[in-house]
Amino acid sequence: MDLRALLRVSGGERTDLGGHDARATPGGQGDKAAGLAETARTGERLAGLQERLWAASTAGDRRRVLLVLQGMDTSGKGGTVKHVIGLLNPSGCRIHAFKAPTKKERAHEFLWRIRRNLPLPGELGIFDRSHYEDVLVARVRELAPRAEIEERYGAINAFERELADDGVTLVKCFLHLSHEEQRDRLLKRLDDPDKHWKFSTGDIDDRALWPAYQEAYEIALARCSTGPAPWYVIPADRKWYRNWAISRLLLETLEELDPRYPPGDFDVARARERLLKS
Amino acid sequence: MDLRALLRVSGGERTDLGGHDARATPGGQGDKAAGLAETARTGERLAGLQERLWAASTAGDRRRVLLVLQGMDTSGKGGTVKHVIGLLNPSGCRIHAFKAPTKKERAHEFLWRIRRNLPLPGELGIFDRSHYEDVLVARVRELAPRAEIEERYGAINAFERELADDGVTLVKCFLHLSHEEQRDRLLKRLDDPDKHWKFSTGDIDDRALWPAYQEAYEIALARCSTGPAPWYVIPADRKWYRNWAISRLLLETLEELDPRYPPGDFDVARARERLLKS
Repeated sequence: MDLRALLRVSGGERTDLGGHDARATPGGQGDKAAGLAETARTGERLAGLQERLWAASTAGDRRRVLLVLQGMDTSGKGGTVKHVIGLLNPSGCRIHAFKAPTKKERAHEFLWRIRRNLPLPGELGIFDRSHYEDVLVARVRELAPRAEIEERYGAINAFERELADDGVTLVKCFLHLSHEEQRDRLLKRLDDPDKHWKFSTGDIDDRALWPAYQEAYEIALARCSTGPAPWYVIPADRKWYRNWAISRLLLETLEELDPRYPPGDFDVARARERLLKS
Repeated sequence: MDLRALLRVSGGERTDLGGHDARATPGGQGDKAAGLAETARTGERLAGLQERLWAASTAGDRRRVLLVLQGMDTSGKGGTVKHVIGLLNPSGCRIHAFKAPTKKERAHEFLWRIRRNLPLPGELGIFDRSHYEDVLVARVRELAPRAEIEERYGAINAFERELADDGVTLVKCFLHLSHEEQRDRLLKRLDDPDKHWKFSTGDIDDRALWPAYQEAYEIALARCSTGPAPWYVIPADRKWYRNWAISRLLLETLEELDPRYPPGDFDVARARERLLKS
């Protein structure tokens, strides 16, 4: 199966998110139990490939992977990090959660803070939100002039091509949540006092802007789904499917990269002899 | 059980590592199978406490934990990150592996690069090697004048007290490996071509300096095991015990910190009402 082909956004001027069912499980073979089991198995294969990627970097291979997670509140960006990235060796993962830009960050162009948090060769980078916020919330909340926002799509495509040329394979995932499922998840947070710290009444304000956010996503996904840096739409109402799909996309990506353990640069027999005497 | 009390270095001028059996399992209840099972269970409790620590930080709690891992080559620093830290949510972990200092780092005082990689409030920081290299390899290989090295112990203690005053709980672990076990582990690396990338003939050169390294550790552990920042000696010949002991030290540490989910700062009934209408 080629899940990347199945979930990839084809590009163009605007993606029709209404035509994507957030509860669907495209490519998923079976039910929740089967999905959880396969995600666990995929995790083991991912961890092996991750080690090879890191090992290759010690011999000069500059390749790395950057997983970009975008989606509305409660769509599962944090859950993906916990349950998918949690299957890997944390020492090879460079995770950054982008918040509203600080005063210092706002003093620079919008990609400045992104460049400072890129994965190094051999690493798996994970962005929980990203430079796409600058064409999403910035568009919806009018945080910059419209003309400037229009220019950013091209700037992003140029930036991501530059990354690809430098060995970065981008895996950009939009966690597609339904309006109803978001309400259920927010209500569950209210029901549990231990989850109140995750809740902000601003989350309810944002729900009123849901159509504007969907429109902003539809434009960004279409304009910025490019050959070197495609977008994938991940139906996210079912957490097990979301985790399965993202782990699977990472697996297909790493298998294609096919990183190899580098050979040693020493005389093995001589090293063994010295060791046995030591 | 108080494993911290059992493994803590008492301080003084020099620790007798010869009196510590690297194959021992102090405090460990049972065999390898039991140890592995208990480490897995401890991981779940750690993940829960880690979430609380992070949640508390969102309400202004500045506390965090810094795990420092030191030990000879193959003693299991990387393995600890993989198998113990791998049980946690990677988004709350800030891991840094310190290599030989770069030219830029050498242009600053030795704690400069340490300060730049500290965990933020709510995080668990993990140092794979640390500022202790500046009194270990620096002492053995005479990378700085002896008088300067002698001054560093006091500088480290002052620095760590400053960290403690700022909410950082230090858990400093020396992975105590036997000379024989290191040879076995290095030989295993030679036997497996997929592990040759981890091998350096410099590792054999360092074995010739084993007594000097043990002495440097004995001095550092004793002089820098302080009230706010104790050292623990972890027998490391048995990997399952090493993982069990470090997970247990983290558990005791986090349970004592007892971080709490902060209460919400909003009207729950009103929020529910608004959500149901949205």
